Amino acid sequence: MPHIELKSAEPGIRGLLRYRPETGRPLSELAEVLLRGPSTLTGGERELIAAYVSALNDCAYCSSAHSACAAAQLPGGMSAVDEVLADLDSAQVPGKLKALLNIAAAVRHSGHAVTAELVDTAREAGATDQELHDTVLIAAAFCMLNRYVDGLATVAPDDPAVYAAGAERLISAGYLMPPAGTLNPGERQ
Amino acid sequence: MPHIELKSAEPGIRGLLRYRPETGRPLSELAEVLLRGPSTLTGGERELIAAYVSALNDCAYCSSAHSACAAAQLPGGMSAVDEVLADLDSAQVPGKLKALLNIAAAVRHSGHAVTAELVDTAREAGATDQELHDTVLIAAAFCMLNRYVDGLATVAPDDPAVYAAGAERLISAGYLMPPAGTLNPGERQ
Repeated sequence: MPHIELKSAEPGIRGLLRYRPETGRPLSELAEVLLRGPSTLTGGERELIAAYVSALNDCAYCSSAHSACAAAQLPGGMSAVDEVLADLDSAQVPGKLKALLNIAAAVRHSGHAVTAELVDTAREAGATDQELHDTVLIAAAFCMLNRYVDGLATVAPDDPAVYAAGAERLISAGYLMPPAGTLNPGERQ
Repeated sequence: MPHIELKSAEPGIRGLLRYRPETGRPLSELAEVLLRGPSTLTGGERELIAAYVSALNDCAYCSSAHSACAAAQLPGGMSAVDEVLADLDSAQVPGKLKALLNIAAAVRHSGHAVTAELVDTAREAGATDQELHDTVLIAAAFCMLNRYVDGLATVAPDDPAVYAAGAERLISAGYLMPPAGTLNPGERQ
């Protein structure tokens, strides 16, 4: 049961965005730019970074939601996502993406854990400045979102079909909140 | 030296907001709502939560910047801030604020560390649902911002006068980014 009265049965971040739209709006805009905005990283790659950090933070709602979004957009589907979440070292992932996932894991631990060596490895595998920037900020943003969702003890559904349906909506409609008063239950992630 | 070329000598978060204004804008808006928007917590109390989490995360830039903002708005000034950062348990802080700072420290560790007991203690000291919500989100947001600032190895000035001057600007002008093209070096935190 959530620590505060959300006045909505929506799970995870959804109930929180609705509870306080003044903060929900910039949070949604940040997710939209980072995960769906113009980028040389694919949507699937960026959702995988989000899912990986959320799994390391043991956030059931965010890791399920963003694993579903990654699986729907990556060529390998959910088995590619599961492989990374189970063991990044042995996972079959292109070199640049693996180096960026290693940076994301460092960010999850602490900003100070991102060493010049980790950055150099990613650069040698082809990562650009903006890809490095966005990887650090996606990982950092999910360190916020995971803490927000679990720190207020929001509910995470068990049924994978809930997250698969949410991923379909997010991939087609995006993360931005609709204008005030037009949000219907179940319309967002 | 920052891990990426920021094309600006601005320290800490300032260079990052300018580097990527698409993410800088929602990040600035989130800070403005959380730290300066309408609230039953004072600006000084909210800045103290930000400074406390940033100090626990060992983020020199953010802890210096938000300690200066808290000191400028709290009755006890910098000595009140220093007391909290040195040892919250023994610090002379009103009961509700101390309970909220304890929740912030839990969030900094993990969302799962926010127990019903911590929330009950804050409620008994007078905390409302929105104060609990905002405390969790301020703490979570600084877990993001600290990682962003240190994960890209931005520069943190040593001179306390830099942060005191920044605090004056932030308290009078706020966190929102000016429209594109009007940002002058040194104008923002």
